[in-house]
Amino acid sequence: MDDLVPPTSGAALQSLYPDSLTYRVEEPVALGMDSGASLAPMTIAYQTYGALNAERSNALLVCHALTGDQHVANLHPVTGRPGWWETMVGPGRPFDTDRFFVICPNVLGGCMGSTGPASLNPETGEPYGLGFPVVTIADMVRAQALLIDHLGIDTLFCVAGGSMGGMQVLQWAAAYPDRVFAALPIATAARHSSQNIAFGEVGRQAVMADPDWRGGRYLVEGTRPSKGLAVARMAAHITYLSESALHRRFGRNLQDRAARTFSFDADFQIESYLRHQGRIFVDRFDPNSYLYLTRAMDYFDLAAEFGGSLANAFQNSPTRFCVVSFTSDWLFPTSDSRAIVRALNAGAASVSFVEIETDKGHDAFLLDVPELLETTKGFIDSAARARGIA
Amino acid sequence: MDDLVPPTSGAALQSLYPDSLTYRVEEPVALGMDSGASLAPMTIAYQTYGALNAERSNALLVCHALTGDQHVANLHPVTGRPGWWETMVGPGRPFDTDRFFVICPNVLGGCMGSTGPASLNPETGEPYGLGFPVVTIADMVRAQALLIDHLGIDTLFCVAGGSMGGMQVLQWAAAYPDRVFAALPIATAARHSSQNIAFGEVGRQAVMADPDWRGGRYLVEGTRPSKGLAVARMAAHITYLSESALHRRFGRNLQDRAARTFSFDADFQIESYLRHQGRIFVDRFDPNSYLYLTRAMDYFDLAAEFGGSLANAFQNSPTRFCVVSFTSDWLFPTSDSRAIVRALNAGAASVSFVEIETDKGHDAFLLDVPELLETTKGFIDSAARARGIA
Repeated sequence: MDDLVPPTSGAALQSLYPDSLTYRVEEPVALGMDSGASLAPMTIAYQTYGALNAERSNALLVCHALTGDQHVANLHPVTGRPGWWETMVGPGRPFDTDRFFVICPNVLGGCMGSTGPASLNPETGEPYGLGFPVVTIADMVRAQALLIDHLGIDTLFCVAGGSMGGMQVLQWAAAYPDRVFAALPIATAARHSSQNIAFGEVGRQAVMADPDWRGGRYLVEGTRPSKGLAVARMAAHITYLSESALHRRFGRNLQDRAARTFSFDADFQIESYLRHQGRIFVDRFDPNSYLYLTRAMDYFDLAAEFGGSLANAFQNSPTRFCVVSFTSDWLFPTSDSRAIVRALNAGAASVSFVEIETDKGHDAFLLDVPELLETTKGFIDSAARARGIA
Repeated sequence: MDDLVPPTSGAALQSLYPDSLTYRVEEPVALGMDSGASLAPMTIAYQTYGALNAERSNALLVCHALTGDQHVANLHPVTGRPGWWETMVGPGRPFDTDRFFVICPNVLGGCMGSTGPASLNPETGEPYGLGFPVVTIADMVRAQALLIDHLGIDTLFCVAGGSMGGMQVLQWAAAYPDRVFAALPIATAARHSSQNIAFGEVGRQAVMADPDWRGGRYLVEGTRPSKGLAVARMAAHITYLSESALHRRFGRNLQDRAARTFSFDADFQIESYLRHQGRIFVDRFDPNSYLYLTRAMDYFDLAAEFGGSLANAFQNSPTRFCVVSFTSDWLFPTSDSRAIVRALNAGAASVSFVEIETDKGHDAFLLDVPELLETTKGFIDSAARARGIA
């Protein structure tokens, strides 16, 4: 494990990340990054589920979203809650751990064991803070490719993920087409929209406006910009839900009171819910990681890496794709997925596209949405047959 | 003028609100508020344009939105910029100041001369801060009705406004049907949605997370929660624009640089634009007012005042209505306007409804949108004929 400074203090966190495996890349195998920086040593923390078969043909890489981590299908070591994709990963699930070797690494720049801004900078002996190089989606995928090499896997059976995870899926397929048999990008985009950059910037400004952020040096100075990070999380959380989901779940319902209090208390259930979301998030997430990972999403523009044409990114791709979007997702609307599908078609790649009718918004990819699970199971089973996986 | 503490210090603000008229309601004529509190003395600052005719039949009340004020059609005394509705108000404009006597008061709870949380509390000799009673849309309208009494006007020719201004229009028509000849609610709702309450709460939490807010006592303590207010404004500003407007205007365009800086500078034009919007806002707006006015919007639920039925609010209303929405407004979507129209129809009121095709989002009501100006002019001219205004 890397010399990671725990995001919060307290005895409960002394045993952080007890379950995660780690792969430490030592010098001089530096990771060359888009920014021109190099990073060594570098640690990738990851979880695996199931077993790699003798042919090494059944590895399924799960890429996590902005605030996700490697704890896909086990109790989370900090929150004690179930894994974030247990609907998808497990015995008999679409990513059937009786058949597939599921791997999920914490992204580079993250805060759950992989090297990130909270890790110790060997040159200074202090946490990197803003001295950490700006990370891109391509950098995350490069680091993952080193891990896959390390695990002795040549070609991944499938790379799958939603939101920022879906960006990594697209990057994998574009950068390493021969190493990706099947790709499942869900609720994602080949480039972050102007509106999404705007929301990213609001989140970053909220963190950086907190005087306890200390120019990113809060770990050294013993402070923590919890209020700023909570505000960032609250704003982002609204974008993960649809207007109709909010209306159905909360409406204008008041908290345990018959009437308005005529104060700034959380009168409405939606207010209390958002405050709670902000509060629990800061206990498990590093504020600087939040800056770096939102920045990586904002910078993502796959076509720009391929001469301005997204079709070029997938020209004659041997990978089979299944692109999934949700009707009520306004953060990564179906139009973003259609742009991916058009590029795949233009590149003569194999692609199926499913827009799932749901009012659950962007977060639908994390939820128990039967059509998502059925679509995924159908795609994975078909790909497994084509790959000759028992 | 009320004993208002200027929102910022500096010589440029010594001459704040030089143009505004004020009406000061002295004790014992207290304003009874929805919260049960009373407020006296109370000052309403307002601007007028044009002249009241001999019949006193041509008064047109403009209600401003959350961050608007009374400076509808004159240079703003703080920013030096043109009035916020000069497309609509002026000689030959839809609200033709050669024909109509246009009045715009700063709302109760505001910060441009009307009594609000930055005003001196006569009981303590200090600014009210959070000691100011929570204001509702109905309270704002009650205060405006006192002003209209004071001006000797029995029936307003028209009450018009967008967004929070539209809420006031609906409240006027429901509370004082005989005093409103015509009503023009634009881009508004009869109740704030769960999503809008959520955005309101994010803004409040951003302000209150700033340690310089000091529990609302920043004026007394000589601080100012500028960073928190700027974040609140940035988040809100995204909701005023449509995704397509952001895409058209900014896309993923970089600032005056050829490439990404791999830093947290404002690389993208949208980032720079949002930071600018946050920065200029804090110079002209009181942070506590922001809390109070967003709270007033969240609390607004006109049907709740009328036994849970919006139709009851408009039963046999003598007012003629024109309801306007914009296709790309996702803050107050057309469905909100349709709910108003359905209630007006159920109440057998006279109503026309126009949904205007535009990609400019919620802010369209403030912009030079030809169909809005034509619709308004047609409605106003027709109402003026019916009212016998030359």
